Amino acid sequence: MTDFAISPELRELRDRVAAFVREIVIPAEARDTTGHGLDDGLRAELQQAARAAGLFAPTVAAEYGGLGLDHRAQAVVLEEAGYSLLGPQALNCAAPDEGNLHLLARVADAAQRERYLRPLAEGRMRSCFAMTEPAPGAGSDPSMLRTEARRVDGGWSISGRKWFITGAEGAAFTICMARTSEQIEAGRGATMLLVDADNPGMRIERIVDAIDRSFPGGHAEVVFDDCRVGDDAVLGEVGEGYRYAQVRLAPARLTHCMRWLGIARRALDTALDRAAEREAFGARLGDLGMVQEKIARSVIDIETSRLLIARCAWVLDQGRSGGRESSIAKAHVAEAVDRVVDRAVQICGALGISGDTQLARYLAEVRPFRIYDGPTETHHWSIARRTLRERAAARAEATA
Amino acid sequence: MTDFAISPELRELRDRVAAFVREIVIPAEARDTTGHGLDDGLRAELQQAARAAGLFAPTVAAEYGGLGLDHRAQAVVLEEAGYSLLGPQALNCAAPDEGNLHLLARVADAAQRERYLRPLAEGRMRSCFAMTEPAPGAGSDPSMLRTEARRVDGGWSISGRKWFITGAEGAAFTICMARTSEQIEAGRGATMLLVDADNPGMRIERIVDAIDRSFPGGHAEVVFDDCRVGDDAVLGEVGEGYRYAQVRLAPARLTHCMRWLGIARRALDTALDRAAEREAFGARLGDLGMVQEKIARSVIDIETSRLLIARCAWVLDQGRSGGRESSIAKAHVAEAVDRVVDRAVQICGALGISGDTQLARYLAEVRPFRIYDGPTETHHWSIARRTLRERAAARAEATA
Amino acid sequence: MTDFAISPELRELRDRVAAFVREIVIPAEARDTTGHGLDDGLRAELQQAARAAGLFAPTVAAEYGGLGLDHRAQAVVLEEAGYSLLGPQALNCAAPDEGNLHLLARVADAAQRERYLRPLAEGRMRSCFAMTEPAPGAGSDPSMLRTEARRVDGGWSISGRKWFITGAEGAAFTICMARTSEQIEAGRGATMLLVDADNPGMRIERIVDAIDRSFPGGHAEVVFDDCRVGDDAVLGEVGEGYRYAQVRLAPARLTHCMRWLGIARRALDTALDRAAEREAFGARLGDLGMVQEKIARSVIDIETSRLLIARCAWVLDQGRSGGRESSIAKAHVAEAVDRVVDRAVQICGALGISGDTQLARYLAEVRPFRIYDGPTETHHWSIARRTLRERAAARAEATA
Amino acid sequence: MTDFAISPELRELRDRVAAFVREIVIPAEARDTTGHGLDDGLRAELQQAARAAGLFAPTVAAEYGGLGLDHRAQAVVLEEAGYSLLGPQALNCAAPDEGNLHLLARVADAAQRERYLRPLAEGRMRSCFAMTEPAPGAGSDPSMLRTEARRVDGGWSISGRKWFITGAEGAAFTICMARTSEQIEAGRGATMLLVDADNPGMRIERIVDAIDRSFPGGHAEVVFDDCRVGDDAVLGEVGEGYRYAQVRLAPARLTHCMRWLGIARRALDTALDRAAEREAFGARLGDLGMVQEKIARSVIDIETSRLLIARCAWVLDQGRSGGRESSIAKAHVAEAVDRVVDRAVQICGALGISGDTQLARYLAEVRPFRIYDGPTETHHWSIARRTLRERAAARAEATA
Repeated sequence: MTDFAISPELRELRDRVAAFVREIVIPAEARDTTGHGLDDGLRAELQQAARAAGLFAPTVAAEYGGLGLDHRAQAVVLEEAGYSLLGPQALNCAAPDEGNLHLLARVADAAQRERYLRPLAEGRMRSCFAMTEPAPGAGSDPSMLRTEARRVDGGWSISGRKWFITGAEGAAFTICMARTSEQIEAGRGATMLLVDADNPGMRIERIVDAIDRSFPGGHAEVVFDDCRVGDDAVLGEVGEGYRYAQVRLAPARLTHCMRWLGIARRALDTALDRAAEREAFGARLGDLGMVQEKIARSVIDIETSRLLIARCAWVLDQGRSGGRESSIAKAHVAEAVDRVVDRAVQICGALGISGDTQLARYLAEVRPFRIYDGPTETHHWSIARRTLRERAAARAEATA
Repeated sequence: MTDFAISPELRELRDRVAAFVREIVIPAEARDTTGHGLDDGLRAELQQAARAAGLFAPTVAAEYGGLGLDHRAQAVVLEEAGYSLLGPQALNCAAPDEGNLHLLARVADAAQRERYLRPLAEGRMRSCFAMTEPAPGAGSDPSMLRTEARRVDGGWSISGRKWFITGAEGAAFTICMARTSEQIEAGRGATMLLVDADNPGMRIERIVDAIDRSFPGGHAEVVFDDCRVGDDAVLGEVGEGYRYAQVRLAPARLTHCMRWLGIARRALDTALDRAAEREAFGARLGDLGMVQEKIARSVIDIETSRLLIARCAWVLDQGRSGGRESSIAKAHVAEAVDRVVDRAVQICGALGISGDTQLARYLAEVRPFRIYDGPTETHHWSIARRTLRERAAARAEATA
Repeated sequence: MTDFAISPELRELRDRVAAFVREIVIPAEARDTTGHGLDDGLRAELQQAARAAGLFAPTVAAEYGGLGLDHRAQAVVLEEAGYSLLGPQALNCAAPDEGNLHLLARVADAAQRERYLRPLAEGRMRSCFAMTEPAPGAGSDPSMLRTEARRVDGGWSISGRKWFITGAEGAAFTICMARTSEQIEAGRGATMLLVDADNPGMRIERIVDAIDRSFPGGHAEVVFDDCRVGDDAVLGEVGEGYRYAQVRLAPARLTHCMRWLGIARRALDTALDRAAEREAFGARLGDLGMVQEKIARSVIDIETSRLLIARCAWVLDQGRSGGRESSIAKAHVAEAVDRVVDRAVQICGALGISGDTQLARYLAEVRPFRIYDGPTETHHWSIARRTLRERAAARAEATA
Repeated sequence: MTDFAISPELRELRDRVAAFVREIVIPAEARDTTGHGLDDGLRAELQQAARAAGLFAPTVAAEYGGLGLDHRAQAVVLEEAGYSLLGPQALNCAAPDEGNLHLLARVADAAQRERYLRPLAEGRMRSCFAMTEPAPGAGSDPSMLRTEARRVDGGWSISGRKWFITGAEGAAFTICMARTSEQIEAGRGATMLLVDADNPGMRIERIVDAIDRSFPGGHAEVVFDDCRVGDDAVLGEVGEGYRYAQVRLAPARLTHCMRWLGIARRALDTALDRAAEREAFGARLGDLGMVQEKIARSVIDIETSRLLIARCAWVLDQGRSGGRESSIAKAHVAEAVDRVVDRAVQICGALGISGDTQLARYLAEVRPFRIYDGPTETHHWSIARRTLRERAAARAEATA
């Protein structure tokens, strides 16, 4: 039966994560100054602290050293970690590694697990996921995939261009999606291949000057040029890349929502603190109706976001794909988080657009989430089509 | 642990309500032509059918002949009943009777239960709740209450004016809120009194020409003029009226949300059916991006509404007051339902503003919900103040 | 050079219209109780008063007894007339007659002018314009026109079905759009025909139960069944109906905007008066930030609407078609007016949804304007396509 | 009479500015890489080109070498200049110099004009305007001014702290607002003082790390510490600083709107070009309804913005203060421009948040405009209060 209770154990874990973020992570934010993701030293230091606190790798199975949380518990913990941009790095549950860990746990063979999954889970390396291509390749429409892997002696030769490959710079390996058939039909014809960072056929052409700065390594444009890999580089089965992408898709999308919800809460708290202190026109900001309306709308945005995430997490925990639910959650949460941060900036006024709080930075960090992992419009399109289809089926059944 | 499962029993009940609405209630809609709420004969006929189907009085305890559902189950059933404007009437879970049933079950003494609760639960009478006053009395601000009950020999004399008293015309009794102290302080000083319809001191001055038409009896302006009632007319204790109003408030607000969510779904379904059939500019409406965006936004509005309702219902089922959660739910659901209906009208075009579907009527029915039971702005104000207070407390604790 | 001055003569005329509406028209509103447009007697009485005040037929040329205003002056006068739903009726500048007057003045031959234009201009008859068809006919997409006029001996036989034909009931004549070619191509193939009310081949099948009530005669569903008319019934030339529809389109659309802008102002004024009087939570409504924000947004909606109307009127006065400008104006004004009325209702609370002010009625009157004369979405589509085309042309030119 | 015509001379000037921006300024954008406003060398080079093209200093009177345009002509020219972030720098009509030029032309005495106005007009120096203070000083509420100028022998001693002082770094002089009376009442009690950059009592404490980067010198936090200036440093009269601020306020606010409107157009054009090229889901982006809706809404935002600017410019050209009109324009344009840029980013997808177009930068540049020169909420408050006042007066008059 519908239940929103959180178990005492999970509550305790959540409170420990909150305390860790408040006491260890937030004080370290001032040292995060590289402008392109957390510096490796600070990242290692925070991860060590998280290990010591027993909070490391919450999404990873126990056999690989993680906390082995289910999706619902992840929702609670990752939101709390996301209260600082550095929290998910510290806990090793940041994108894109977190999604890759999930994917490898489900698809990789034993050798791949030892070689890639274990060190990634332990925070000893970073990874990336190379799917998106610049126009006219695969952006929000995957059928436009242009990167190709041809059969060669003893393996495959990959050629193509990818961009917005988050974390490619500094990643020990790349999971590359390439077409292995002329046609991509019914979700078949593409394959995932594991490419090591030192492969001479792969090169990082540039780091895209994107507005967000919190992903270590930034977003790279990567070129594969007769990039040779062996048969052992194939992740899962040949031709099934899109099926595996689906395996990664909903959960990875949802953990993004969880983390960004943490930032939304942080932004609102920043605005609340300001509204409690600052006076204008003879009143505390927090006593002004226009400020109150912004606060209330942000509370509603946060609550509805958390509920959509929890519901989708529950669906995933039932072993279902969560395609519909994760699409709805992503479309709503990305827009809601952006609104919450925008309102917080507006409440804080000049302070909000200065570097004196984290708000200005959050503006730049959350805006891209309305685009990556499927632009809001693509999700709306998908939600509408599915809804039309389901309604037609329900009517047919009712009249049958 | 967080759970969104619905028990097989509840699912079965929901499906039976859905079938009942589809097969019995919706076909009767064409006979609902009085323009001021369902005509008594048709109401009785539908209630009889609901009794026969074992669906009557879902919110009422078994000892009074109801299904005795908890709040979470009510959420499922009342949404389904709300798929037709006549559904809640048929099941005897419409406002204001449903809220009064809840209130009487918690506050009335044994004699009052037999005299008022039982026949109301059985659908043998209707009731009303007289709290709102015209300016300068108590509108959204209850401290402005002007109706007064003075101690007289053997009872009380009530004088004052109320308006927007839903269902007063035709109600067998009225629960009237009146001040019984000079000061209303800390929620004390007002009292609820039961007034029978034949009391000569109470008169219905007019039926307000409101835009909604689905409440039997409409919304009345009621005058109390030296209206005499005995001591046995006092509901609960003298001076505690606002405390009881709180008992009624959150659940009654929430059942409104449940029922109106049903109408939102109906409106969306109507639009989906139209979008599937109608062509324009060489495409089905449902294939046009602007229509798809409207559909997707409505799906998200419906899903977030349902989740906020479920969460608040769960809080109520825990025995908590649900003040915060019901305020958030009400503020969001009332706006969301209005948007969903508005989009459905827009998708249906000229058809949507004609009387050929129910949509035009829904426009008028749902608009007032953004005002009654607390205007959205009042809820926003309350949510913001509470959030500021809680944040200040959390900071104080964190730094303590 | 850009100029927003209003000439002293026009200002004086505007003030006279305002006074006429305030002193003569608004006091008559309480007598407008038929529920389906102004009753004929009251209409005649108000028109007589307007004639006496020298304010009759502002859009009609002097030779037909009107004030002969250009579009910019119409914008000023019709907004002022529109401050009451009855104002445009009183001044004989209401839809659909006003648009038909414009059309006839440009397209009708001498005989048609005497027979139709003159008595219409003088308020001696009403008229209607029969273009829209129920699905699957011509709704927002005119190429789907199904009503057909076939050549017969000595004239034409019209067959087809129209709906939402405003004012058909009681109209002395109908301007009917019918296809006269197999193909409608490049805007050719349809013809406008004048049909007298007593033609036995035309019948009003029903009055659509639409949500708006201010158009005399309501909106009819009209059937043409071998409806015979002579060659003298052809308005302009055969096959050119859509070209004439364009002649009518932009100006008629724009006068709608002018009139509804008057209602928006009236709604805002009603809310301002309420906000100045009513207290809640220890403050005047008008001192509450959330109310102030609503007022300010409504002011901006009204000002931007007025400017778009003025600009389009100026374009029309230059002899240009105004297709782009009227589309932008219509899309914005219809949405803006709806928002202004909605906000006014919200500010007024329960009063706003009662019949105690005109606001509740305005809600129902303005909502359809987002649909008729092109739904907002159709205008957005048209604006976007034109903008894309113009940008492509500008780029081509810049690089040529 | 209302007129939207642009004279042939102005049209020609506009086209020359457009060509200059297209051919000279935009190609230079790639060299604008300092991250904190245009580098001085490039600025000088572009200004020289503008001088050569006869386009320099459009807002400055001819006697100081400018084009001497009135406000309406400025609206046309500054929008066109604003099509590149560098355009207003090139033409010497960027903030804050442009506002200071306006102020000095109206208030400075002859000596001050030669010393400050002339070299500023000629682009030989930059300036800044020091009014805003950090909390608890004067933010959006000017009555909270804390910086103080005390009478000392032979002049004044200024003490206080200012922030968000745009362009302070590198400015040859500062116009500083300081209180010169205990009380600031009825707009009196503050004085404007001219402070040279080499004054030892003034120091730039830091450059605020604000999100926008296009203002040369960025936004500084400036400390005045017993900063001594002579009596000749007083601009206008002692105690009248706020009156002069009003002189500067509306025009400076309006030129901001003009320039940012140019950026909005640029953003839309970038999106249009992308929508014309890029394909997804089997269609050009520009053929997708959701993209079309975004385009249309942006067109409407741009058109309404331009009209509000033109109307306010006309009011200023009539010699009126334009307080109401500039407040409405500012509130609308700042929000509209932000929306237009946001939609353009969304249409462009990943490209929009990369540095490969200027869009991502525009996001950061336009966001602060919703806050500086009065946050939207402050303008809404002001518009609402004025509207309530005017309505009360109109009613009083009507019933008098």
